[in-house]
Amino acid sequence: MTYTEHLIAYYKKVASECISGVSLDCVIFGFHDTKLKVLLLRWKDTKEWSLPGGFIYKAESVDAAAERVLHERTGLNQLFLQQFHLFGDAVRYDQNDTLRRQKMPDLLFGICPDRTITMGYYALVDYTKVTPTADFLSDECVWCDVSDLPSMLYDHRQIIDVALKTLRLQLNWQPIGLNLMPEKFTIPELQRLYETVLGRPLDARNFHKKITGLSILTRLNERRTGGAHKSPYLYHFDRVNYEKALINGNLIFV
Amino acid sequence: MTYTEHLIAYYKKVASECISGVSLDCVIFGFHDTKLKVLLLRWKDTKEWSLPGGFIYKAESVDAAAERVLHERTGLNQLFLQQFHLFGDAVRYDQNDTLRRQKMPDLLFGICPDRTITMGYYALVDYTKVTPTADFLSDECVWCDVSDLPSMLYDHRQIIDVALKTLRLQLNWQPIGLNLMPEKFTIPELQRLYETVLGRPLDARNFHKKITGLSILTRLNERRTGGAHKSPYLYHFDRVNYEKALINGNLIFV
Repeated sequence: MTYTEHLIAYYKKVASECISGVSLDCVIFGFHDTKLKVLLLRWKDTKEWSLPGGFIYKAESVDAAAERVLHERTGLNQLFLQQFHLFGDAVRYDQNDTLRRQKMPDLLFGICPDRTITMGYYALVDYTKVTPTADFLSDECVWCDVSDLPSMLYDHRQIIDVALKTLRLQLNWQPIGLNLMPEKFTIPELQRLYETVLGRPLDARNFHKKITGLSILTRLNERRTGGAHKSPYLYHFDRVNYEKALINGNLIFV
Repeated sequence: MTYTEHLIAYYKKVASECISGVSLDCVIFGFHDTKLKVLLLRWKDTKEWSLPGGFIYKAESVDAAAERVLHERTGLNQLFLQQFHLFGDAVRYDQNDTLRRQKMPDLLFGICPDRTITMGYYALVDYTKVTPTADFLSDECVWCDVSDLPSMLYDHRQIIDVALKTLRLQLNWQPIGLNLMPEKFTIPELQRLYETVLGRPLDARNFHKKITGLSILTRLNERRTGGAHKSPYLYHFDRVNYEKALINGNLIFV
Protein backbone atom coordinates (compact mmCIF):
# COMPACT_ATOMS: atom_id res chain seq x y z
CA MET A 1 0.00 0.00 0.00
CA THR A 2 1.43 3.42 -0.90
CA TYR A 3 1.34 6.25 1.63
CA THR A 4 -1.49 7.93 -0.35
CA GLU A 5 -3.53 4.71 -0.38
CA HIS A 6 -2.88 4.33 3.33
CA LEU A 7 -4.06 7.93 3.93
CA ILE A 8 -7.25 7.43 1.95
CA ALA A 9 -8.02 4.14 3.71
CA TYR A 10 -7.45 5.87 7.07
CA TYR A 11 -9.80 8.79 6.38
CA LYS A 12 -12.44 6.41 4.98
CA LYS A 13 -12.20 4.32 8.16
CA VAL A 14 -12.54 7.47 10.31
CA ALA A 15 -15.58 8.59 8.29
CA SER A 16 -17.34 5.27 8.74
CA GLU A 17 -16.31 4.29 12.30
CA CYS A 18 -15.94 7.58 14.17
CA ILE A 19 -18.33 10.36 15.14
CA SER A 20 -18.07 13.22 12.68
CA GLY A 21 -17.10 16.81 13.33
CA VAL A 22 -15.38 16.14 16.67
CA SER A 23 -11.77 15.30 17.50
CA LEU A 24 -9.45 15.49 20.48
CA ASP A 25 -5.92 16.76 20.97
CA CYS A 26 -3.52 15.97 23.79
CA VAL A 27 -0.89 18.29 25.21
CA ILE A 28 1.42 15.82 26.95
CA PHE A 29 3.77 17.59 29.34
CA GLY A 30 7.02 16.14 30.65
CA PHE A 31 9.87 17.73 32.62
CA HIS A 32 13.48 16.94 31.82
CA ASP A 33 16.85 18.58 32.22
CA THR A 34 15.20 21.58 33.94
CA LYS A 35 12.94 22.13 30.92
CA LEU A 36 9.19 21.74 30.41
CA LYS A 37 8.62 19.60 27.30
CA VAL A 38 5.66 18.65 25.17
CA LEU A 39 5.34 15.53 23.01
CA LEU A 40 4.96 16.35 19.29
CA LEU A 41 4.65 14.46 16.01
CA ARG A 42 6.40 15.48 12.78
CA TRP A 43 4.11 15.03 9.78
CA LYS A 44 5.45 12.57 7.19
CA ASP A 45 8.00 14.02 4.72
CA THR A 46 7.57 17.56 6.12
CA LYS A 47 9.01 19.87 8.76
CA GLU A 48 5.56 20.53 10.19
CA TRP A 49 4.53 19.42 13.68
CA SER A 50 1.31 18.61 15.46
CA LEU A 51 -0.04 17.39 18.78
CA PRO A 52 -0.99 13.75 19.31
CA GLY A 53 -4.71 13.50 18.72
CA GLY A 54 -7.42 11.59 17.00
CA PHE A 55 -11.05 10.77 16.53
CA ILE A 56 -13.70 9.14 18.71
CA TYR A 57 -15.21 5.77 17.79
CA LYS A 58 -18.99 5.71 17.64
CA ALA A 59 -19.30 3.60 20.80
CA GLU A 60 -16.41 5.21 22.68
CA SER A 61 -16.54 8.04 25.25
CA VAL A 62 -14.46 11.11 24.45
CA ASP A 63 -12.41 10.61 27.62
CA ALA A 64 -11.70 6.98 26.69
CA ALA A 65 -10.55 8.10 23.23
CA ALA A 66 -8.11 10.53 24.87
CA GLU A 67 -6.73 7.73 27.07
CA ARG A 68 -6.33 5.52 24.00
CA VAL A 69 -4.40 8.19 22.07
CA LEU A 70 -2.15 8.83 25.07
CA HIS A 71 -1.43 5.14 25.50
CA GLU A 72 -0.62 4.76 21.79
CA ARG A 73 1.86 7.67 21.81
CA THR A 74 3.51 7.11 25.22
CA GLY A 75 3.10 3.41 26.04
CA LEU A 76 1.68 4.45 29.43
CA ASN A 77 -1.66 3.75 31.08
CA GLN A 78 -3.40 5.50 33.97
CA LEU A 79 -1.93 8.86 33.17
CA PHE A 80 -2.96 12.10 34.83
CA LEU A 81 -5.25 13.37 32.09
CA GLN A 82 -7.59 16.37 32.22
CA GLN A 83 -9.99 18.12 29.86
CA PHE A 84 -9.00 21.77 29.73
CA HIS A 85 -10.75 23.54 26.85
CA LEU A 86 -13.07 22.90 23.92
CA PHE A 87 -11.76 24.63 20.79
CA GLY A 88 -15.06 25.33 19.07
CA ASP A 89 -14.56 28.24 16.69
CA ALA A 90 -16.36 27.94 13.36
CA VAL A 91 -13.02 28.53 11.57
CA ARG A 92 -10.12 27.31 13.68
CA TYR A 93 -7.35 27.60 11.05
CA ASP A 94 -6.74 27.95 7.31
CA GLN A 95 -7.57 24.42 6.17
CA ASN A 96 -6.07 24.66 2.68
CA ASP A 97 -2.84 26.12 4.01
CA THR A 98 -2.57 23.26 6.51
CA LEU A 99 -3.30 20.64 3.84
CA ARG A 100 -0.58 22.11 1.61
CA ARG A 101 1.97 22.14 4.43
CA GLN A 102 1.05 18.49 5.15
CA LYS A 103 1.72 17.71 1.45
CA MET A 104 -1.69 16.07 1.30
CA PRO A 105 -2.63 14.47 -2.05
CA ASP A 106 -4.99 16.70 -4.06
CA LEU A 107 -7.86 14.24 -3.84
CA LEU A 108 -7.97 14.72 -0.04
CA PHE A 109 -8.60 18.48 -0.35
CA GLY A 110 -12.26 17.89 -1.11
CA ILE A 111 -13.19 15.25 1.46
CA CYS A 112 -12.33 17.09 4.68
CA PRO A 113 -15.36 18.00 6.81
CA ASP A 114 -16.26 21.71 6.78
CA ARG A 115 -15.64 22.03 10.46
CA THR A 116 -14.18 20.01 13.31
CA ILE A 117 -14.31 21.04 16.93
CA THR A 118 -11.65 19.57 19.17
CA MET A 119 -11.53 18.80 22.86
CA GLY A 120 -8.20 19.74 24.43
CA TYR A 121 -6.74 17.45 27.08
CA TYR A 122 -3.51 17.88 28.97
CA ALA A 123 -1.52 15.06 30.49
CA LEU A 124 1.32 15.16 33.01
CA VAL A 125 3.77 12.32 32.71
CA ASP A 126 7.04 11.15 34.19
CA TYR A 127 9.41 11.88 31.27
CA THR A 128 11.66 8.94 32.09
CA LYS A 129 8.83 6.41 31.70
CA VAL A 130 7.61 7.44 28.23
CA THR A 131 8.41 5.61 25.00
CA PRO A 132 7.47 8.18 22.32
CA THR A 133 5.85 6.31 19.43
CA ALA A 134 4.96 7.80 16.03
CA ASP A 135 1.86 6.81 14.03
CA PHE A 136 1.83 6.08 10.28
CA LEU A 137 1.05 9.75 9.52
CA SER A 138 4.28 10.87 11.18
CA ASP A 139 8.02 10.46 10.72
CA GLU A 140 8.82 10.92 14.39
CA CYS A 141 7.39 11.51 17.83
CA VAL A 142 9.71 13.53 20.09
CA TRP A 143 9.82 15.81 23.12
CA CYS A 144 10.09 19.53 22.28
CA ASP A 145 10.92 22.36 24.65
CA VAL A 146 7.78 24.49 25.17
CA SER A 147 9.92 27.63 25.03
CA ASP A 148 11.25 26.70 21.59
CA LEU A 149 8.41 25.18 19.56
CA PRO A 150 8.75 24.31 15.84
CA SER A 151 6.25 25.25 13.07
CA MET A 152 2.88 23.82 14.11
CA LEU A 153 -0.04 22.57 11.99
CA TYR A 154 -3.72 23.44 12.58
CA ASP A 155 -4.26 25.69 15.64
CA HIS A 156 -2.01 23.50 17.75
CA ARG A 157 0.27 26.33 18.81
CA GLN A 158 -2.73 28.10 20.35
CA ILE A 159 -3.87 24.86 22.02
CA ILE A 160 -0.45 24.52 23.68
CA ASP A 161 -0.63 28.17 24.85
CA VAL A 162 -4.03 27.61 26.47
CA ALA A 163 -2.77 24.39 28.10
CA LEU A 164 0.19 26.28 29.58
CA LYS A 165 -2.09 28.99 30.98
CA THR A 166 -4.24 26.26 32.53
CA LEU A 167 -1.19 24.63 34.12
CA ARG A 168 -0.19 27.98 35.63
CA LEU A 169 -3.69 28.52 37.06
CA GLN A 170 -3.93 24.98 38.40
CA LEU A 171 -0.43 24.74 39.88
CA ASN A 172 -1.85 25.14 43.37
CA TRP A 173 -4.78 22.77 43.25
CA GLN A 174 -3.84 19.96 40.89
CA PRO A 175 -0.96 17.52 41.56
CA ILE A 176 1.28 19.13 38.94
CA GLY A 177 4.63 18.50 40.68
CA LEU A 178 3.60 15.01 41.79
CA ASN A 179 2.94 13.95 38.20
CA LEU A 180 5.76 15.75 36.39
CA MET A 181 8.74 15.03 38.65
CA PRO A 182 10.59 11.70 38.63
CA GLU A 183 10.51 9.47 41.71
CA LYS A 184 13.52 11.22 43.31
CA PHE A 185 14.55 14.84 42.81
CA THR A 186 16.38 17.71 44.46
CA ILE A 187 14.71 20.89 45.72
CA PRO A 188 16.47 23.03 43.07
CA GLU A 189 15.06 20.69 40.39
CA LEU A 190 11.54 21.12 41.78
CA GLN A 191 12.09 24.88 41.92
CA ARG A 192 12.95 24.86 38.20
CA LEU A 193 9.59 23.19 37.46
CA TYR A 194 7.73 25.88 39.40
CA GLU A 195 9.72 28.62 37.68
CA THR A 196 9.05 27.13 34.24
CA VAL A 197 5.31 26.81 34.80
CA LEU A 198 5.02 30.25 36.42
CA GLY A 199 7.33 31.85 33.85
CA ARG A 200 9.35 33.77 36.44
CA PRO A 201 12.37 33.19 38.71
CA LEU A 202 11.85 32.38 42.39
CA ASP A 203 14.13 33.10 45.32
CA ALA A 204 15.96 29.83 46.15
CA ARG A 205 16.13 30.33 49.93
CA ASN A 206 12.42 31.24 50.15
CA PHE A 207 11.39 28.35 47.91
CA HIS A 208 13.37 25.85 50.00
CA LYS A 209 11.89 27.14 53.25
CA LYS A 210 8.30 27.17 52.00
CA ILE A 211 8.27 23.85 50.13
CA THR A 212 9.89 21.96 53.00
CA GLY A 213 7.45 23.61 55.41
CA LEU A 214 4.45 22.05 53.63
CA SER A 215 5.20 18.51 54.85
CA ILE A 216 4.72 17.14 51.33
CA LEU A 217 8.37 16.10 50.87
CA THR A 218 10.40 13.33 52.46
CA ARG A 219 14.19 13.72 52.46
CA LEU A 220 16.05 10.56 51.45
CA ASN A 221 19.42 9.40 52.71
CA GLU A 222 20.85 10.01 49.26
CA ARG A 223 22.45 12.93 47.50
CA ARG A 224 22.67 13.94 43.84
CA THR A 225 26.35 13.64 42.99
CA GLY A 226 28.39 14.69 39.99
CA GLY A 227 27.24 18.31 39.69
CA ALA A 228 29.46 21.37 39.91
CA HIS A 229 27.88 22.41 43.24
CA LYS A 230 27.88 20.61 46.55
CA SER A 231 25.73 17.49 46.35
CA PRO A 232 22.11 18.31 47.24
CA TYR A 233 19.83 15.81 49.03
CA LEU A 234 17.26 13.85 47.08
CA TYR A 235 13.58 14.00 48.07
CA HIS A 236 10.40 12.26 47.12
CA PHE A 237 6.78 13.31 47.54
CA ASP A 238 4.70 12.13 50.48
CA ARG A 239 1.62 11.24 48.44
CA VAL A 240 -0.82 11.23 51.36
CA ASN A 241 0.22 14.66 52.60
CA TYR A 242 0.39 15.99 49.05
CA GLU A 243 -3.23 15.02 48.37
CA LYS A 244 -4.29 16.49 51.73
CA ALA A 245 -2.50 19.77 50.92
CA LEU A 246 -4.31 19.96 47.56
CA ILE A 247 -7.71 19.46 49.18
CA ASN A 248 -6.97 22.10 51.80
CA GLY A 249 -5.59 24.59 49.25
CA ASN A 250 -2.29 24.57 51.12
CA LEU A 251 -0.03 24.46 48.09
CA ILE A 252 -0.38 28.19 47.55
CA PHE A 253 2.98 29.55 48.53
CA VAL A 254 4.62 31.26 45.56
CA MET B 1 -49.35 25.36 13.91
CA THR B 2 -49.92 22.62 16.51
CA TYR B 3 -47.28 21.90 19.14
CA THR B 4 -46.33 18.68 17.32
CA GLU B 5 -45.93 20.52 14.01
CA HIS B 6 -43.87 23.15 15.80
CA LEU B 7 -41.65 20.44 17.31
CA ILE B 8 -41.07 18.75 13.95
CA ALA B 9 -40.28 22.06 12.26
CA TYR B 10 -37.81 22.85 15.06
CA TYR B 11 -35.93 19.56 14.84
CA LYS B 12 -35.83 19.81 11.01
CA LYS B 13 -34.37 23.32 11.30
CA VAL B 14 -31.76 22.07 13.79
CA ALA B 15 -30.84 19.17 11.47
CA SER B 16 -30.31 21.48 8.50
CA GLU B 17 -28.80 24.58 10.15
CA CYS B 18 -26.79 23.26 13.12
CA ILE B 19 -23.75 21.03 13.47
CA SER B 20 -24.82 17.49 14.25
CA GLY B 21 -23.97 15.40 17.28
CA VAL B 22 -22.96 18.33 19.50
CA SER B 23 -25.00 20.47 21.90
CA LEU B 24 -24.39 22.72 24.88
CA ASP B 25 -26.01 23.02 28.29
CA CYS B 26 -25.84 25.95 30.69
CA VAL B 27 -25.91 25.74 34.47
CA ILE B 28 -26.93 29.30 35.38
CA PHE B 29 -26.30 30.00 39.06
CA GLY B 30 -27.93 32.79 41.05
CA PHE B 31 -27.97 33.53 44.78
CA HIS B 32 -31.14 34.68 46.52
CA ASP B 33 -32.59 34.60 49.98
CA THR B 34 -29.43 32.86 51.29
CA LYS B 35 -29.91 30.04 48.75
CA LEU B 36 -27.93 28.98 45.69
CA LYS B 37 -30.33 28.66 42.75
CA VAL B 38 -30.16 27.29 39.23
CA LEU B 39 -32.34 28.35 36.31
CA LEU B 40 -34.45 25.47 34.95
CA LEU B 41 -37.07 24.92 32.25
CA ARG B 42 -40.19 22.77 32.73
CA TRP B 43 -40.89 20.71 29.59
CA LYS B 44 -44.27 21.47 28.02
CA ASP B 45 -47.26 19.65 29.60
CA THR B 46 -45.01 17.64 31.93
CA LYS B 47 -43.45 17.84 35.39
CA GLU B 48 -40.00 17.17 33.94
CA TRP B 49 -37.21 19.75 34.06
CA SER B 50 -34.08 20.49 32.08
CA LEU B 51 -31.21 22.95 31.83
CA PRO B 52 -31.27 25.77 29.29
CA GLY B 53 -29.29 24.57 26.30
CA GLY B 54 -29.28 24.25 22.58
CA PHE B 55 -27.44 23.57 19.37
CA ILE B 56 -24.65 25.33 17.49
CA TYR B 57 -25.25 26.94 14.09
CA LYS B 58 -22.88 25.82 11.35
CA ALA B 59 -21.07 29.19 11.26
CA GLU B 60 -21.21 29.86 15.02
CA SER B 61 -18.54 29.17 17.63
CA VAL B 62 -19.57 26.93 20.52
CA ASP B 63 -18.84 29.74 23.01
CA ALA B 64 -21.01 32.17 21.00
CA ALA B 65 -23.86 29.64 20.99
CA ALA B 66 -23.62 29.43 24.80
CA GLU B 67 -23.79 33.24 25.06
CA ARG B 68 -26.83 33.27 22.78
CA VAL B 69 -28.67 30.64 24.85
CA LEU B 70 -27.88 32.54 28.06
CA HIS B 71 -29.11 35.80 26.60
CA GLU B 72 -32.34 34.18 25.39
CA ARG B 73 -33.12 32.68 28.82
CA THR B 74 -31.99 35.54 31.08
CA GLY B 75 -32.20 38.74 29.00
CA LEU B 76 -28.62 39.51 30.02
CA ASN B 77 -25.47 40.03 27.99
CA GLN B 78 -21.82 39.89 29.00
CA LEU B 79 -22.37 37.27 31.63
CA PHE B 80 -19.62 35.47 33.48
CA LEU B 81 -19.66 32.25 31.47
CA GLN B 82 -17.17 29.36 31.62
CA GLN B 83 -16.74 25.99 29.97
CA PHE B 84 -16.45 23.40 32.74
CA HIS B 85 -16.80 19.87 31.31
CA LEU B 86 -17.50 18.01 28.08
CA PHE B 87 -20.05 15.26 28.68
CA GLY B 88 -18.89 12.79 26.05
CA ASP B 89 -20.05 9.34 27.09
CA ALA B 90 -21.29 7.11 24.26
CA VAL B 91 -24.55 6.58 26.18
CA ARG B 92 -25.33 9.57 28.40
CA TYR B 93 -28.90 8.60 29.39
CA ASP B 94 -31.81 6.35 28.46
CA GLN B 95 -33.07 8.14 25.34
CA ASN B 96 -36.42 6.35 25.06
CA ASP B 97 -37.19 6.93 28.74
CA THR B 98 -36.44 10.65 28.32
CA LEU B 99 -38.59 10.89 25.16
CA ARG B 100 -41.50 9.24 26.99
CA ARG B 101 -41.20 11.59 29.97
CA GLN B 102 -41.14 14.51 27.52
CA LYS B 103 -44.37 13.17 25.99
CA MET B 104 -42.73 13.35 22.58
CA PRO B 105 -44.90 12.36 19.59
CA ASP B 106 -44.11 8.81 18.40
CA LEU B 107 -42.78 10.00 15.06
CA LEU B 108 -39.92 11.81 16.85
CA PHE B 109 -38.66 8.59 18.47
CA GLY B 110 -36.97 7.56 15.21
CA ILE B 111 -35.30 10.79 14.15
CA CYS B 112 -33.09 11.52 17.16
CA PRO B 113 -29.35 11.19 16.46
CA ASP B 114 -27.71 8.08 17.96
CA ARG B 115 -25.45 10.15 20.12
CA THR B 116 -25.00 13.76 21.17
CA ILE B 117 -22.08 15.03 23.19
CA THR B 118 -22.70 18.20 25.14
CA MET B 119 -20.42 20.97 26.36
CA GLY B 120 -21.26 22.09 29.87
CA TYR B 121 -21.01 25.82 30.69
CA TYR B 122 -21.69 27.49 33.99
CA ALA B 123 -22.73 31.11 34.39
CA LEU B 124 -22.81 33.29 37.49
CA VAL B 125 -25.47 35.99 37.43
CA ASP B 126 -26.92 38.66 39.67
CA TYR B 127 -30.28 37.07 40.50
CA THR B 128 -32.04 40.44 40.72
CA LYS B 129 -31.18 41.34 37.13
CA VAL B 130 -32.48 38.20 35.41
CA THR B 131 -35.80 37.95 33.55
CA PRO B 132 -36.31 34.18 33.24
CA THR B 133 -37.79 33.47 29.80
CA ALA B 134 -39.15 30.12 28.64
CA ASP B 135 -38.81 28.82 25.06
CA PHE B 136 -41.62 27.17 23.02
CA LEU B 137 -40.58 23.73 24.29
CA SER B 138 -41.22 24.76 27.90
CA ASP B 139 -44.11 25.86 30.07
CA GLU B 140 -41.96 27.88 32.43
CA CYS B 141 -38.43 29.01 33.23
CA VAL B 142 -37.80 29.43 36.97
CA TRP B 143 -35.12 29.47 39.65
CA CYS B 144 -34.83 26.22 41.62
CA ASP B 145 -32.91 25.66 44.83
CA VAL B 146 -29.86 23.45 44.10
CA SER B 147 -30.46 21.57 47.35
CA ASP B 148 -34.02 20.68 46.30
CA LEU B 149 -33.99 19.84 42.57
CA PRO B 150 -37.06 18.45 40.75
CA SER B 151 -37.11 15.43 38.39
CA MET B 152 -34.57 16.17 35.63
CA LEU B 153 -34.48 15.04 31.99
CA TYR B 154 -31.40 13.69 30.15
CA ASP B 155 -28.26 13.58 32.37
CA HIS B 156 -28.89 17.13 33.56
CA ARG B 157 -28.85 16.22 37.24
CA GLN B 158 -25.31 14.90 36.81
CA ILE B 159 -24.31 18.02 34.85
CA ILE B 160 -25.48 20.22 37.75
CA ASP B 161 -23.53 18.07 40.22
CA VAL B 162 -20.32 18.46 38.19
CA ALA B 163 -20.93 22.22 37.90
CA LEU B 164 -21.31 22.48 41.69
CA LYS B 165 -18.07 20.57 42.25
CA THR B 166 -16.34 22.94 39.82
CA LEU B 167 -17.70 25.98 41.68
CA ARG B 168 -16.33 24.58 44.94
CA LEU B 169 -12.89 24.00 43.41
CA GLN B 170 -12.80 27.42 41.78
CA LEU B 171 -14.12 29.45 44.72
CA ASN B 172 -10.65 30.76 45.41
CA TRP B 173 -9.48 31.66 41.94
CA GLN B 174 -12.56 32.71 39.98
CA PRO B 175 -14.65 35.78 40.87
CA ILE B 176 -17.52 33.66 42.26
CA GLY B 177 -18.70 36.10 44.95
CA LEU B 178 -18.23 39.11 42.70
CA ASN B 179 -20.60 37.67 40.11
CA LEU B 180 -23.19 36.05 42.36
CA MET B 181 -23.78 38.73 44.98
CA PRO B 182 -25.95 41.80 44.36
CA GLU B 183 -24.39 45.27 44.29
CA LYS B 184 -24.75 45.67 48.07
CA PHE B 185 -24.76 42.92 50.67
CA THR B 186 -23.99 42.21 54.31
CA ILE B 187 -21.13 40.03 55.51
CA PRO B 188 -23.52 37.35 56.87
CA GLU B 189 -25.13 37.20 53.40
CA LEU B 190 -21.72 36.69 51.77
CA GLN B 191 -20.92 34.05 54.39
CA ARG B 192 -24.07 32.15 53.40
CA LEU B 193 -22.87 32.06 49.77
CA TYR B 194 -19.52 30.60 50.85
CA GLU B 195 -21.26 28.08 53.10
CA THR B 196 -23.62 27.02 50.31
CA VAL B 197 -20.86 26.54 47.75
CA LEU B 198 -18.59 24.76 50.23
CA GLY B 199 -21.43 22.71 51.68
CA ARG B 200 -20.42 23.30 55.32
CA PRO B 201 -20.98 25.92 58.02
CA LEU B 202 -18.30 28.51 58.76
CA ASP B 203 -17.56 30.30 62.00
CA ALA B 204 -19.10 33.80 61.74
CA ARG B 205 -16.45 35.66 63.74
CA ASN B 206 -13.60 34.04 61.79
CA PHE B 207 -15.28 34.66 58.44
CA HIS B 208 -15.85 38.34 59.28
CA LYS B 209 -12.25 38.80 60.35
CA LYS B 210 -10.75 37.04 57.35
CA ILE B 211 -12.95 38.49 54.61
CA THR B 212 -12.57 42.07 55.85
CA GLY B 213 -8.82 41.48 56.14
CA LEU B 214 -8.52 40.81 52.38
CA SER B 215 -9.15 44.45 51.37
CA ILE B 216 -11.66 43.32 48.75
CA LEU B 217 -14.70 44.87 50.50
CA THR B 218 -15.72 48.49 50.99
CA ARG B 219 -18.10 49.25 53.86
CA LEU B 220 -20.92 51.61 52.90
CA ASN B 221 -22.59 54.19 55.10
CA GLU B 222 -25.78 52.12 55.00
CA ARG B 223 -27.24 49.34 57.08
CA ARG B 224 -29.62 46.49 56.25
CA THR B 225 -32.73 47.27 58.28
CA GLY B 226 -35.88 45.31 59.04
CA GLY B 227 -34.33 42.03 60.19
CA ALA B 228 -34.73 40.44 63.60
CA HIS B 229 -31.10 41.15 64.51
CA LYS B 230 -29.30 44.43 64.91
CA SER B 231 -28.89 46.09 61.51
CA PRO B 232 -25.65 44.97 59.84
CA TYR B 233 -23.62 47.26 57.57
CA LEU B 234 -23.84 46.91 53.80
CA TYR B 235 -20.68 46.34 51.75
CA HIS B 236 -19.75 46.22 48.11
CA PHE B 237 -16.78 44.63 46.37
CA ASP B 238 -13.70 46.66 45.49
CA ARG B 239 -13.34 45.29 41.95
CA VAL B 240 -9.70 46.28 41.45
CA ASN B 241 -8.54 44.68 44.71
CA TYR B 242 -10.77 41.65 44.09
CA GLU B 243 -9.13 40.98 40.71
CA LYS B 244 -5.68 41.47 42.26
CA ALA B 245 -6.49 39.01 45.05
CA LEU B 246 -7.59 36.41 42.48
CA ILE B 247 -4.37 36.76 40.51
CA ASN B 248 -2.27 36.46 43.65
CA GLY B 249 -4.24 33.49 44.98
CA ASN B 250 -5.11 35.50 48.07
CA LEU B 251 -8.74 34.48 48.29
CA ILE B 252 -7.83 31.21 49.99
CA PHE B 253 -8.99 31.71 53.54
CA VAL B 254 -11.65 29.15 54.41
